[in-house]
Amino acid sequence: MALKSLDDLFHDTLRDVFYAEKKLVRTLPKLAKKASDEELSRAFTNHLAETQKQVARLEQVFEMIGKPARAKKCEAMDGLVEEGDGVIEDADDDAVLDAGLLAAAQAVEHYEIARYGTLIEWGKLLGLPKAVKLLEATLGEEKAADGLLSNIASRINLLAKSQGQDAAA
Amino acid sequence: MALKSLDDLFHDTLRDVFYAEKKLVRTLPKLAKKASDEELSRAFTNHLAETQKQVARLEQVFEMIGKPARAKKCEAMDGLVEEGDGVIEDADDDAVLDAGLLAAAQAVEHYEIARYGTLIEWGKLLGLPKAVKLLEATLGEEKAADGLLSNIASRINLLAKSQGQDAAA
Repeated sequence: MALKSLDDLFHDTLRDVFYAEKKLVRTLPKLAKKASDEELSRAFTNHLAETQKQVARLEQVFEMIGKPARAKKCEAMDGLVEEGDGVIEDADDDAVLDAGLLAAAQAVEHYEIARYGTLIEWGKLLGLPKAVKLLEATLGEEKAADGLLSNIASRINLLAKSQGQDAAA
Repeated sequence: MALKSLDDLFHDTLRDVFYAEKKLVRTLPKLAKKASDEELSRAFTNHLAETQKQVARLEQVFEMIGKPARAKKCEAMDGLVEEGDGVIEDADDDAVLDAGLLAAAQAVEHYEIARYGTLIEWGKLLGLPKAVKLLEATLGEEKAADGLLSNIASRINLLAKSQGQDAAA
């Protein structure tokens, strides 16, 4: 897709984020299943419901700009998910797995925070206040999800640390 | 590499970030060359010097934990850089290219912010205050770089917008 204008960039990035969110809808159930900590697993499950709402919002934004809701392969999100898969493959302890999954999930949240931030700025310039409102609602949720993960992390990281000490004892 | 403890996770993530920063050292000169806006190009060049310092800091951290400074392929960073390459390939206008590069660079900064945030938390738990200090210095720089890019973006996005209007006129 040739990018000739800010409208094109907005549309292209919307397709990228649409891919990322739909990939996350497929990935989160796996993370919820693999996480051994109950609170972490529940956080992944709750974020799945949120992500499904976010996909629906993106579909509304596509409609607002008169384009079909069509995803575009997002290499960054694929890479981020691969990193999470690497942790699942390599982790040899439950608490260590949880700490690694948490970190991978926070990297995903930060990717989305960057992308929604950009879309919101472009949407404002392009005179799309209704789209901006939807994107801002999602950005707020992503930031809250990142904050929640940080809270859970303080406990999980301690568990992972004491695990290492037990193993060394 | 089997991840059995928080030390292992710290080491593994350090290798991931080391790969990401070294990849950025190779990528930033290309971004500086492709950017048509002088301020943006200069920001990329300045961030290259900073990134080289950050690579050296990571080498110090490897030394502090008694491990060789060896990178581990970071799929997320590869994906982020591919997204920037996609913009370079598809952009059909200078201001639109700049706006797209800026957005891609901010996604990279956010990835790094997430990763350094995690390393710092783990480093504190692992009793590595000197490493934490180095990582915090880098995190501060990444946040400042993101803020600088946001400032430049407000001007570049306006240019990209008026470009679209010219093209439609």
